Amino acid sequence: MPHSTRRLIEELTVEEKASITSGADFWHTKAIERVGVPSIMVTDGPHGLRKQAGAGDHLGLNDSVPATCFPPAVGLGSSFDPELAERVGRAIGTEAAIEEVAVVLGPGINIKRSPLCGRNFEYFSEDPVVAGEMGRAVVDGIQSRGVGASLKHFAVNNQETDRMRVSADVDPRPLHEIYLRAFAHVVTRSQPWTVMCSYNRINGVYASEDPWLLTDLLRTAWGFEGLVVSDWGAVNDRVAALAAGLDLEMPGSGGATDAQIAAAVADGTLEPAVLDVAAVRNLDLVAKSQQRPPVEGPLDVDAHHALAREAAGRSIVLLKNDADLLPLSPAASIAVIGEFARTPRFQGGGSSHIKPTRIDTALDEFVAQLGDRVRFAAGFTFDGSDTATLREDAVALAGEQDVVVLFLGLPAAEESEGFDRTHLNLPAAQLDLLDGILAVNPNVVVVLSNGAVVTLPFADRVPAIVEAWLLGQAGGSATVDVLTGAVNPSARLTETIPLRLEDTPAFGSFPGALGHVRYGEGIYVGYRWYDTRRMAVAYPFGHGLSYTRFSYGPVTAHIDDAGDMRISVPVTNVGPRDGREVVQVYLRHDSSIVDRAPRELKSFASVEIPAGQTRDVPLTIRRDDLAYWDVRADRFVVEGGTYRIDIGSSSRDLPQTTTVDVAGDPLHLPLTMDSSVGEVMAHPVAGAIVAEQLAAMGPGAAGFLEDPMIAQILGSFPIGRLPSFPGIEIEADQIRALIRAADDS
Amino acid sequence: MPHSTRRLIEELTVEEKASITSGADFWHTKAIERVGVPSIMVTDGPHGLRKQAGAGDHLGLNDSVPATCFPPAVGLGSSFDPELAERVGRAIGTEAAIEEVAVVLGPGINIKRSPLCGRNFEYFSEDPVVAGEMGRAVVDGIQSRGVGASLKHFAVNNQETDRMRVSADVDPRPLHEIYLRAFAHVVTRSQPWTVMCSYNRINGVYASEDPWLLTDLLRTAWGFEGLVVSDWGAVNDRVAALAAGLDLEMPGSGGATDAQIAAAVADGTLEPAVLDVAAVRNLDLVAKSQQRPPVEGPLDVDAHHALAREAAGRSIVLLKNDADLLPLSPAASIAVIGEFARTPRFQGGGSSHIKPTRIDTALDEFVAQLGDRVRFAAGFTFDGSDTATLREDAVALAGEQDVVVLFLGLPAAEESEGFDRTHLNLPAAQLDLLDGILAVNPNVVVVLSNGAVVTLPFADRVPAIVEAWLLGQAGGSATVDVLTGAVNPSARLTETIPLRLEDTPAFGSFPGALGHVRYGEGIYVGYRWYDTRRMAVAYPFGHGLSYTRFSYGPVTAHIDDAGDMRISVPVTNVGPRDGREVVQVYLRHDSSIVDRAPRELKSFASVEIPAGQTRDVPLTIRRDDLAYWDVRADRFVVEGGTYRIDIGSSSRDLPQTTTVDVAGDPLHLPLTMDSSVGEVMAHPVAGAIVAEQLAAMGPGAAGFLEDPMIAQILGSFPIGRLPSFPGIEIEADQIRALIRAADDS
Repeated sequence: MPHSTRRLIEELTVEEKASITSGADFWHTKAIERVGVPSIMVTDGPHGLRKQAGAGDHLGLNDSVPATCFPPAVGLGSSFDPELAERVGRAIGTEAAIEEVAVVLGPGINIKRSPLCGRNFEYFSEDPVVAGEMGRAVVDGIQSRGVGASLKHFAVNNQETDRMRVSADVDPRPLHEIYLRAFAHVVTRSQPWTVMCSYNRINGVYASEDPWLLTDLLRTAWGFEGLVVSDWGAVNDRVAALAAGLDLEMPGSGGATDAQIAAAVADGTLEPAVLDVAAVRNLDLVAKSQQRPPVEGPLDVDAHHALAREAAGRSIVLLKNDADLLPLSPAASIAVIGEFARTPRFQGGGSSHIKPTRIDTALDEFVAQLGDRVRFAAGFTFDGSDTATLREDAVALAGEQDVVVLFLGLPAAEESEGFDRTHLNLPAAQLDLLDGILAVNPNVVVVLSNGAVVTLPFADRVPAIVEAWLLGQAGGSATVDVLTGAVNPSARLTETIPLRLEDTPAFGSFPGALGHVRYGEGIYVGYRWYDTRRMAVAYPFGHGLSYTRFSYGPVTAHIDDAGDMRISVPVTNVGPRDGREVVQVYLRHDSSIVDRAPRELKSFASVEIPAGQTRDVPLTIRRDDLAYWDVRADRFVVEGGTYRIDIGSSSRDLPQTTTVDVAGDPLHLPLTMDSSVGEVMAHPVAGAIVAEQLAAMGPGAAGFLEDPMIAQILGSFPIGRLPSFPGIEIEADQIRALIRAADDS
Repeated sequence: MPHSTRRLIEELTVEEKASITSGADFWHTKAIERVGVPSIMVTDGPHGLRKQAGAGDHLGLNDSVPATCFPPAVGLGSSFDPELAERVGRAIGTEAAIEEVAVVLGPGINIKRSPLCGRNFEYFSEDPVVAGEMGRAVVDGIQSRGVGASLKHFAVNNQETDRMRVSADVDPRPLHEIYLRAFAHVVTRSQPWTVMCSYNRINGVYASEDPWLLTDLLRTAWGFEGLVVSDWGAVNDRVAALAAGLDLEMPGSGGATDAQIAAAVADGTLEPAVLDVAAVRNLDLVAKSQQRPPVEGPLDVDAHHALAREAAGRSIVLLKNDADLLPLSPAASIAVIGEFARTPRFQGGGSSHIKPTRIDTALDEFVAQLGDRVRFAAGFTFDGSDTATLREDAVALAGEQDVVVLFLGLPAAEESEGFDRTHLNLPAAQLDLLDGILAVNPNVVVVLSNGAVVTLPFADRVPAIVEAWLLGQAGGSATVDVLTGAVNPSARLTETIPLRLEDTPAFGSFPGALGHVRYGEGIYVGYRWYDTRRMAVAYPFGHGLSYTRFSYGPVTAHIDDAGDMRISVPVTNVGPRDGREVVQVYLRHDSSIVDRAPRELKSFASVEIPAGQTRDVPLTIRRDDLAYWDVRADRFVVEGGTYRIDIGSSSRDLPQTTTVDVAGDPLHLPLTMDSSVGEVMAHPVAGAIVAEQLAAMGPGAAGFLEDPMIAQILGSFPIGRLPSFPGIEIEADQIRALIRAADDS
């Protein structure tokens, strides 16, 4: 049994305390055998366990023990189903427990600012509500097994280019409303055991040494009780980092930076109490991990593979399905074309790269289910070699079969942790193959394998498109489940598919240069951008088809006693099959004092509805989620007024609407000499006094102000500057008295 | 004769010195009769004199003495002709001299960030080269008469909303490359007698009290020798302003803030020498104005009106002219429709509002030239009243004549100093009238009167469109000159006409809220935005048609001994009429280390070419104008490499191209512990050392780095963090030695 950490800390030397605030190696914390503190192991996630076999290499990238590869976040997020994500998290927690891993390094909930970000496949969405709620579910799942999660990458880490140094220059509103909102959601609801700080700087300050980020916001404002660990190599100045609230440096530095900590305590530049706090958090984490309930191995590979297949099936977005080409007709002969069908790309490159327990391929599954109705041609190679011959064979095959299922996608070399893409195109050879096939057979189903969106210049010419992302080790079989109709697709886009790279919000400012990247699009990330500018897109946020159809009844909404918005809408499955609908609630405030997007997702629910049946779907928008960040008050504020609720099945298919009146938060901004004449006139107390005084001055004074141009110019004048104007007979003291009268009221 | 100001200053008391650093009233500086310092008068511009008659009112807006109203900057800028602008400036200077005005408050050279800005009519362009060069010409013209100009509004004052307080939050590159570039151009070339600081804040600091802006940049970097005057009411903290470099507060504050200055000197918070400097600058300005060569009145009203007519004719942009509908056929009967033909809108509202010496109307001119071939209908009223009947009469008239010349535009109430527009639409009644007319007569010429761009939803349905902006007092006759062909149009768009408001760069972030406006589009202002994002526009920057046609021969370019780029292109008038071509030179750098627009205007020339003749047009791009702002070096840097020159008659009609190789500025950025491994490897000295050491470590080490993903991840690693990584056998001291070796080389 470990000692109580509060008592234990008193037994440690400064050197020992310093030592346990950095790792022993790539994957372990340091033990202190003298007092019985064991070492614990942490291991990469997020969509499965990457426990390195052996000692680890320089970058921690060599082989790992087999583990179930679940769909990466790009897939799992598309399910829009936190319950499913929680089950996946639980399974990952189980595998961690069997492997005696204390903390799994995930989930990643960074916002997809640009589709070019090389690590987007590890993130959930361009929307903070989706990212936050799906991340919350994974954390709850992992931690239900007595294993810690590590919420990452905190914060504003939205690109790979120059990621170790770049300063994400972002204004307060997008920072809080877009980039931090998901983190706040997960921390306040699920208390992840650890939060991992990111590599980058935010507005010039390294996340690893930012006291505002790691302490004021994370702990004081959000109440975080766990430990902050650095991303691997993210520590720039170890002493500054510890003082800012970074509790654990990973990987270990062989003692070099521990000595800096001890020296700083010795020379008085670091408070001993600060080191104690960090050391206690490390001891607490170790203690928590020691209480993990025993889980019996070995891993039930079949059961977890089945869950991986279920999750993958729920991750596939049916983008287009003209003339009900899908599900595939039971009688049709099928040409399966594309190397991805035989050699699936099911995960991304980098720290999340898992050694799967098995791999399903779509081709094997097709053959198993449909036998000799299926014929295969590779069509292309991943590296582009030998493609001419392969293309010829594939086109010939396409001409001989009833339907072509064409697997296109991004080869692994084109997207990974560590670098960003520079374009959104599929390889030219693949697009050329598609053209060749369309010339001989119009019945083409395109199935896409990609970790982030690609442009779809062929969208108008192909009758069916299936966005199959990266789906984990069972993605091949799950894809066939959807194509044959064994699974009715229900996933939705968590990111807009644009028509062109040039349309994307961050185009021209992503990934920045010379150490800085300006988040110039502000709050207009993802669909907020396209909707505000009324731009055409290929497929909108939230879009995804089903093999059945749903109909929405009238929506009702009210504010409950806690101030939350309670919404209910009846949804009917009016089609021929059982299915699952993702009900989406968007909010709008038309008379806001700040710029807002015309719709913002605030709540969603994935609901199974049998054919012909109706479900009343309840949804809640917490009052907190109504708030905008007010730069004057430096906090979130709920603005009063009428909010419009739009509800439906995608951001651009919102058949039902209602409105709700909301009482705003009180916001007492005192009048000052810098307040404008207009603000003073609008103030209930001060405005009345001024009006009275103007009336006393006779009709000339009032008439002067009735000229609209003069009223507009004068209205924006800081009241404190009026005394400086020749001919305006008001003293500074009179204005001060007016302000006092207003503020005392 | 005034004393030498340097000696004079010694004779003044602190109170006297303080007193002359603020105005006596709205329009005059203070005299100090004791030592013979007279009061001088300053008066609004920028496109003519607004010398108030009588004592002035609270806001300085009442009636003024008659003066020639030249085309506001929106018009004059469209001439793209600095020589013309200089002649106009000279005329304004003459009128000022006759009226004994020492300083004319103009030109305004702020960048048109959004077409919504209410004061855009007073500014030249969305492009800093056009704004700078046209502003330079006006300053030279005014000052050639011994009258001072006041270059305004310094700086980053690009909206009217909350203009007295709003903080323009702008990054270093757009700040220097877009918003300050024109100011630097005028100050360094023309030394305006005064620069007027703007109302707003820049990145949180009031322009009126920003020592970086008013002293470090304006004086130290640019060498400004004149006086800085506040915009009227722009002083927030008088002592801070004076210390920052604000020499003259306007208008006067009745002594209140002078006393603050004296008190600050007395209590030691303001250095006496700082006050001396400001006082001397005021005395210098007075002394300079006393040396004005005598100009004999009265004003030659006819001559200046003729110049106003010439300038207006040169300001009219022929946007569209299908089937050569223009110039009007000598035989055609003409319906002149629209209240603007009878009651021209020829200037904007606010401080620049002039009392003209006379007013030409298009209707009078038409009747004078064409007699009873012309019939008129008002069609609508400016305030929208009685429009139904007027519409009916106008449509009836349109059906009876051969050609309709339809005058549409923005009523004065829709745009002015003091507020911004919220949309880009023409009034609905006018658009409706156009529809009615098109239904009965397709031969419609639309003539627009507007101070900033409006959207043209009818552009595809109307054969001819004339953008006549606000043209000053002779705009009516000048418009008829162009319509009849007496003047061959030669003006060009200094601002893009977008298809929709939602397409504009600042949409969604203009005009900001709660005291801040983020310039999120960065360097992508105006055509830089549309071109970078490859967006369709209604009419591109630089566009404008002629009644003749021009053909471009091959362009040649070289770098001269001073490092400037010398360009020459033969241009031939291949059409039937004498005409004037605006030759435009755009530059591109395809392998830049920073983000750049695909084309940037760098030079232009307005050239008169008789029919059938060829002119070799020489153009120069100064080396300084090649530079980008480097945020690491905190200065302008010319990047080496191949620049592409595109030359032609608009930003999207560039028939001739060549390239020039440019040697870059030396930029010695030392290696540091924060330098990335990639940067170290690329360094000529350090890279060689590392390569040697890796080779010595054997094939394993080199092979490791040959994996592209590892190379990419490691390449972005700050070299100073390598020693912290387990298994990497390098000491911090070894890295420091490497850096020293590199930096000593």
